[in-house]
Amino acid sequence: MAAPRPTPGRRGRGRPAGDSDTRPAILAAARNCFAERGYDRATIRDIAATAGVDPALLHHHFGTKHELFLAAMRLPIDPTDIVRGLLAGDPDRLGERIVDTFLTVWDSPAGAALAGMVRSAVSHEPSSRMLSEFMATSVLAPVVKQLGVRDAKMRVSYVASQLFGLALVRYILRLEPLASAKRDRVVTDVAPSIQRYLTEPFTR
Amino acid sequence: MAAPRPTPGRRGRGRPAGDSDTRPAILAAARNCFAERGYDRATIRDIAATAGVDPALLHHHFGTKHELFLAAMRLPIDPTDIVRGLLAGDPDRLGERIVDTFLTVWDSPAGAALAGMVRSAVSHEPSSRMLSEFMATSVLAPVVKQLGVRDAKMRVSYVASQLFGLALVRYILRLEPLASAKRDRVVTDVAPSIQRYLTEPFTR
Repeated sequence: MAAPRPTPGRRGRGRPAGDSDTRPAILAAARNCFAERGYDRATIRDIAATAGVDPALLHHHFGTKHELFLAAMRLPIDPTDIVRGLLAGDPDRLGERIVDTFLTVWDSPAGAALAGMVRSAVSHEPSSRMLSEFMATSVLAPVVKQLGVRDAKMRVSYVASQLFGLALVRYILRLEPLASAKRDRVVTDVAPSIQRYLTEPFTR
Repeated sequence: MAAPRPTPGRRGRGRPAGDSDTRPAILAAARNCFAERGYDRATIRDIAATAGVDPALLHHHFGTKHELFLAAMRLPIDPTDIVRGLLAGDPDRLGERIVDTFLTVWDSPAGAALAGMVRSAVSHEPSSRMLSEFMATSVLAPVVKQLGVRDAKMRVSYVASQLFGLALVRYILRLEPLASAKRDRVVTDVAPSIQRYLTEPFTR
């Protein structure tokens, strides 16, 4: 992932030269505000005030709060884009697509950045809250809406638990034999659990 | 769990008074050696040498390497004891017993200590390796042996992934609605995944 900080040679979009100084200040202010207030309560207006800039400049540089969060956290991918793609295909193979995509991203160079993000979210209380609010509001809520099943929020929590656990055991704790297992095998074995969480009736 | 450090009122086993000073040194040496060499390669002899005591004293105070690890990491429970109890009952309800026991322990006062251990294992590379080696050698290997199914090691990795993920989402990231869901409900919903990982044939 490219660093969000612009370098003189790579800007060239005709913005005034002073702009390049405000981006790092805005990103630092965003990290502070998100950590302090959580994702849901931190506003673009708060962050602009903390950075000492006009909210319009912040919108100009980063777009929405969602996009600002991705930049401030240096997230290598936008989970919303991925989720949108996954939901587009055959609902009976959704579990398979989810596990395959999840492992493909973690096996790619982006995996190291994701591992860093999970490490920090787990070890640091405000980061945990920030990440879980972002996940709930910005990633999971659209899935729940589109799934149209009963208990959708709970189902998505279970999916998150299995996927986070897979990342933890395979990529962070590196517990064998899961750490070295072929991706296709893990997809085949884990997909039915994800599919069950998403679409099969719960016995209760 | 009782703290491993003896207090004057509770010792009374007629040991020389000097002993109480060596326990903290042994535990500190154990933490260093486990972190530096991993669980498998750190030996009682190494740890005794680091603490500057005789290995016999170390055995006297702590028993086996497994027990020394539990004391050094301040683990509130011995996972081996729990696992032994779980494996004793009806194999068709093993998934249910595992999830129920796992959540009961995390919901108890021991949960805070476990959360601390997971936070440190995730954020600190040597702690990750140490914990995963301990899990593999001392907790999972006996399960694998007793299960007597094909792919037992892989199956146990999947169980670990679902359980760790549940702990992460419910107790550490506290993602709703899973964070506030009733334990019985979570047991009913997650048990079939655990049961499938342990005993059902994988389609491949």
